[in-house]
Amino acid sequence: MILDGKQIASEIRAELREQVCETKARGLRIPKLAVVIVGHNPASETYVANKIKACEEIGIEAERIALEDSVSEQQLLEVVHQLNNDPSVDGFIVQLPLPEHIAETTILSAIDYRKDVDGLTPENVGRTVQGLPSLVSATPRGIRELLARYNIVTEGKHVVVIGRSNIVGKPIAMLLMQRPYLSLPGMSAASLGDATVTICHSKTRDLAAICRTADIIIVAAGSPKLLTADMVKEGAVVIDVGINRMDDPASPRGYRLVGDVDYEHVAPKAAYISPVPGGVGPMTIVSLLQNTLQAYNEHIR
Amino acid sequence: MILDGKQIASEIRAELREQVCETKARGLRIPKLAVVIVGHNPASETYVANKIKACEEIGIEAERIALEDSVSEQQLLEVVHQLNNDPSVDGFIVQLPLPEHIAETTILSAIDYRKDVDGLTPENVGRTVQGLPSLVSATPRGIRELLARYNIVTEGKHVVVIGRSNIVGKPIAMLLMQRPYLSLPGMSAASLGDATVTICHSKTRDLAAICRTADIIIVAAGSPKLLTADMVKEGAVVIDVGINRMDDPASPRGYRLVGDVDYEHVAPKAAYISPVPGGVGPMTIVSLLQNTLQAYNEHIR
Repeated sequence: MILDGKQIASEIRAELREQVCETKARGLRIPKLAVVIVGHNPASETYVANKIKACEEIGIEAERIALEDSVSEQQLLEVVHQLNNDPSVDGFIVQLPLPEHIAETTILSAIDYRKDVDGLTPENVGRTVQGLPSLVSATPRGIRELLARYNIVTEGKHVVVIGRSNIVGKPIAMLLMQRPYLSLPGMSAASLGDATVTICHSKTRDLAAICRTADIIIVAAGSPKLLTADMVKEGAVVIDVGINRMDDPASPRGYRLVGDVDYEHVAPKAAYISPVPGGVGPMTIVSLLQNTLQAYNEHIR
Repeated sequence: MILDGKQIASEIRAELREQVCETKARGLRIPKLAVVIVGHNPASETYVANKIKACEEIGIEAERIALEDSVSEQQLLEVVHQLNNDPSVDGFIVQLPLPEHIAETTILSAIDYRKDVDGLTPENVGRTVQGLPSLVSATPRGIRELLARYNIVTEGKHVVVIGRSNIVGKPIAMLLMQRPYLSLPGMSAASLGDATVTICHSKTRDLAAICRTADIIIVAAGSPKLLTADMVKEGAVVIDVGINRMDDPASPRGYRLVGDVDYEHVAPKAAYISPVPGGVGPMTIVSLLQNTLQAYNEHIR
C-alpha cells in the first residue's frame, strides 16, 4: 500500500484551515509566521515563497523579512531578538543556508525555542529527547504523522533508521524510540513511539542483514536506490526520505527525482511504502504549519 | 578482562590534580564548583558531601549552598540566576530530587548550559545530539571514558543499549552513534563514536536475540541479572550500569549491590566486562570533575 503523503498533507491542510477559521470566528488574533531570508539564493527564494503560500492558503498570516547578503551576524541576531519579543509573531524561521560570514549555530541558538517552528534549536532538540513538550523539526514530524495517519503501530516494532543527520535520522530515532508523550489528534498512542530503534550510517557493517530484521525502515541517506529488495523483509514498512536528482533525457527538465529506495523492486515486498515524490516531501511543509499552530496555541494560553 | 573503573577513576583524578596544580602554578584563578542542596534528604547529603570531597582532593574549590525545604521555586530560580552570572563559579549543580512544590524541569532549564556540569539541561542535551561542544552528563561521559581508556574501538561496532533513560540510555546511544567530535586526551577517535546503535527497552521484543548480535552491550535497566549468559556473544564487551540492592544476610549491611548483569555467568564469555561495584560507578564522580574543568577551560579562554 502506498503511503500517500500528498493526499494526507491535503487532508491535514483542510483540518488546519478549519482550525484557523474557528480561531477567527471566535474573534481571536490570527496566527502569524515570520520567515527571514538572507540574500538571493534562488532555491531559498522558492522554498520561502512556498512556505508563505502554504500559510496563506490555510489563513495563517505570513511575513517575509528579506535581508541583504551584506547583513552582519550582529544585525541578524538583532532581528532574531526582535522576533523573539514580538507578541504578534507566534513562530519564525531563518531560512538556511546563511552567508558564510554568519555562524548558523549562533543564529539558531538565539531563537526562542517556543517560536522555533523549524525545531532546529538545541533547546528544542534536547526537549524532544527528554520527552518534554517541544516543536519537532519538519521531516521527523511529517514521518510520524504519516505513520500515525495510516495507523501503523510502532510499539514493540524494530525500526531501522539509515542516516544520522541532525534534521532527520537522529530526531526520528529519538521520537520512535521513546515513550509516546505527544498526543496527535485522532490516533492511538501505539503509533507514536515505543519502538526498538537501530541507527545505521556510513560506518555500519552489514547494513543488509540489519535491514532484513526491520519491521519499519526509514531511509534518509541521500543515496539513490540504496535500499534494495534483498534488504527488505516481506511485509515491512518502508519510508523513503531521499530526494535525489537522476539524469533523465526523457524528462522535460532533463532529470527526475528518485528516493533512496529501489522503489520498483522494493514496493512488491513492502506492506506500506512512501513514494518519491509524493511521500514524505509533502508532509514537511504541513509540519511547519502544524508547528506554527502549536506555537500559537501554547502562546495564547 | 575486567574494566576497572576504580583504577581508571583514580588515574584520572591524578591527571586532573596535576592540571589544577599547573593552573595554580601559572597564577590563574582556581576552578570552582558550586553545589546547591535543598532540604535534608540523607542520600542527597551523602552525594553532595562526596562530590565536594572529590573536588577538594584534586584542588577544585567547592561551595555548598544549602537551602531549606521551604524555599520557593522563585527563590531557587534566583539562586540559579546568581550562579549563572557569578564569574567566580565555573560550574554548578542542583542536587536532585527537589521538593514536590518545585518543578525540576523549570530549575534545570534555567541553568546556563555553559555551567551545567551535570549535563542535564535541554540545551546541553540538544547540543550533544547535534554534535556541538557540550557538557555530557556523568554516566554516559564515564562510560565513554572507560571504553576509551581500554582502547575499545566503537567504530562500525554494533552497540546494544538496554534502557532509555534521559540520564543514561538516550545520551550514551547518541554519543556512540554519531561522528566522533569530542577529543579526549590520549585516545584515538575510533573509540568515540561511529557505532551502529540499537536502543532497547521494556517494549522490546526478543531482547535476547538482539543482544546476541551485539559487539558491545550497555545495560542500564535497573533490573538485577537482566543480562544472562545466553544473551551474550562470545567476546562481547559488557558495560553494567545497574546498581541494585539485593538482600544478603551474610553482609554486615544486610544487602549487597548487584548490577543488571548476571556477572558470574556472563564474565567468562565477555572480552571486557565492568563489575558492580567498581565499574561505571567510580567513573561518574570523575565525570563531574572533568566537566567542571572543561567549563573552567572554556570559561577562561
